[in-house]
Amino acid sequence: MPVGTAGTVKAIPQDILENLGAQIILGNTYHLYLRPGHELVRKLGGLHRFMSWERALLTDSGGFQVFSLSELRKVKEEGVSFRSHLDGTSHLFTPERSMEIQIALGADIVMAFDECTEHPAERERARASMEMTLRWAKRSKDYFEAHKHEVPWNSISTLSAENAERMGHPTAYPAAPALFGIVQGGMYPDLRRESAERTVELDFPGYAIGGLSVGESRAKTMEMIAAVLEILPKDKPRYVMGVGYPEEIVQYAAMGVDMMDCVLPTRAARHGLLFTSEGRINIKNARYAQDQGPADPKCGCRVCVRYTRAYLRHLFVSAEPLAGVLNTVHNLAYYLDTMRSVRHAITLGDLSGMLSGSVSLT
Amino acid sequence: MPVGTAGTVKAIPQDILENLGAQIILGNTYHLYLRPGHELVRKLGGLHRFMSWERALLTDSGGFQVFSLSELRKVKEEGVSFRSHLDGTSHLFTPERSMEIQIALGADIVMAFDECTEHPAERERARASMEMTLRWAKRSKDYFEAHKHEVPWNSISTLSAENAERMGHPTAYPAAPALFGIVQGGMYPDLRRESAERTVELDFPGYAIGGLSVGESRAKTMEMIAAVLEILPKDKPRYVMGVGYPEEIVQYAAMGVDMMDCVLPTRAARHGLLFTSEGRINIKNARYAQDQGPADPKCGCRVCVRYTRAYLRHLFVSAEPLAGVLNTVHNLAYYLDTMRSVRHAITLGDLSGMLSGSVSLT
Repeated sequence: MPVGTAGTVKAIPQDILENLGAQIILGNTYHLYLRPGHELVRKLGGLHRFMSWERALLTDSGGFQVFSLSELRKVKEEGVSFRSHLDGTSHLFTPERSMEIQIALGADIVMAFDECTEHPAERERARASMEMTLRWAKRSKDYFEAHKHEVPWNSISTLSAENAERMGHPTAYPAAPALFGIVQGGMYPDLRRESAERTVELDFPGYAIGGLSVGESRAKTMEMIAAVLEILPKDKPRYVMGVGYPEEIVQYAAMGVDMMDCVLPTRAARHGLLFTSEGRINIKNARYAQDQGPADPKCGCRVCVRYTRAYLRHLFVSAEPLAGVLNTVHNLAYYLDTMRSVRHAITLGDLSGMLSGSVSLT
Repeated sequence: MPVGTAGTVKAIPQDILENLGAQIILGNTYHLYLRPGHELVRKLGGLHRFMSWERALLTDSGGFQVFSLSELRKVKEEGVSFRSHLDGTSHLFTPERSMEIQIALGADIVMAFDECTEHPAERERARASMEMTLRWAKRSKDYFEAHKHEVPWNSISTLSAENAERMGHPTAYPAAPALFGIVQGGMYPDLRRESAERTVELDFPGYAIGGLSVGESRAKTMEMIAAVLEILPKDKPRYVMGVGYPEEIVQYAAMGVDMMDCVLPTRAARHGLLFTSEGRINIKNARYAQDQGPADPKCGCRVCVRYTRAYLRHLFVSAEPLAGVLNTVHNLAYYLDTMRSVRHAITLGDLSGMLSGSVSLT
């Protein structure tokens, strides 16, 4: 899932995302709550209509961004108080508040409010954090079940039907979104398994594995994912949050992961880092100044069929806004093509050809 | 003509420019000379191929940017010495050098090297500057005629034909570009007329009117244009450089101007200013926070058919890069639609319906 933090996958118009084949994108609850505000988005018909995106949307719980972006964060049983990174104002996120905000945003998939355990964390700290995430999961579910029909499109009378129709926005939506639970447990396999078991007992239509890719080794990430996948039901979507490099997402898919999101393709693009079939290239490197080949000779995206590395380098070193646009289009194409290949290989019944030889998947 | 300063109309992919109906765009010689450098562009096949733009290109002489951007500028008979605004390095632009650079860039229309007279300027200063521009026009033409076949595509052997074909780049170009002369003369109608007469005597395939929109009143701009249009041949393209607001370009077209360029639609877009059939709007204004209408209800561009003012405002106040992309697409659509309407009205034989009532065109 490409990440569209503030109601936009940075620099990319929605029709290009559609052409790239993005089936679902992720919005960040923390950012959208602060700006433009969930009540505004609700009033305007929900995030789908606000950003003109008819395909699926997932919103995160806000917990990770509070953890990584906000100031003066204070975690209590009730929830997390914090100050906005934008203007220093004070706010409180609780499981109930996170549900209220996400329902107002109107995503198709809503995430339970969790605490992303810091890394490294002592075992007792990881256990306490996991226990709180479980209590918060229960509170999230209780609030969600009681309020899930309060999605914006069920109070659509405030909208201009004429404009909605003119702009081709859909008027039919599902009655309610789906709520996914999140597994935590730090870097302790037994805590991860316990978290998974007790989250599954709460019975969600899908499960995420959170608190990974926070500084641990890749081997450790895989160990945690493997431990949890033993427990999570195979017939429900299984989602690893915040990963990863292209070779990682292939590996995790081979392990049985169904969904992933990451800012890497979009953020790296804005820093001039391109993912290609020949490896990662830093487009600002002087070696590309006269390179008349495409970013990736094996890529058929609209950037690779039209522009040279020399041109992309010029745009980047000149700080031209088109650099961010084109680099992002290519990186998203690379990621989405990778996942298309994964799905194709799964259909054929053999993912082994896509896996790098360096990582054992036993 | 949309302005594509550094080989890119800021933030806009070339296919979108094509879809908008842009027939020709302008590149700035000063910028392209400094970065990526005209010799690099020549080596890579010229600006058309470098930026993947098959339609027409015009490059300016570099004179105006030296005048407005560079540091420690010093004008002599030979040319203009200046320091780069990028890195402070010293450079010299002469008429011959400007021609050499523009031929290397390989635009379809090349502009004679002129001095943009500062405003206000005393009569004698304006005359002296005009006289120098005439001498520089002669030197520009002499150099151009002797070297015009040194365009990049006549030495195409350095290129990878395979990549060019793969990327759909054209391989057939005209044998040489066209050189336009530039009329100066400050804000003195008689000097303007004399400049026009003597520039016409030098015999160019097209003529530009430079040194306008430099701080004078709009009435003064129109007076200068009217004085010069009496002299310039009607069967040659007549180009007013660096104008203007939408209502201005309609007025100038009605007076007989064939070509104009301006950074206004693109630069204003990046500052949140949108041109609409209802006037100019500043999209960051709080009144648009819940506005579910399109930027311009009468516009059929890809932005107006899909996104609301509320969303455009959110993108702008959040400093999202998509704001610059979408605002620019709309403003360019507005300008290009305006010129399409002008051409249509000319075909029908009556432009009067497009003119604002406030300006007399006698």
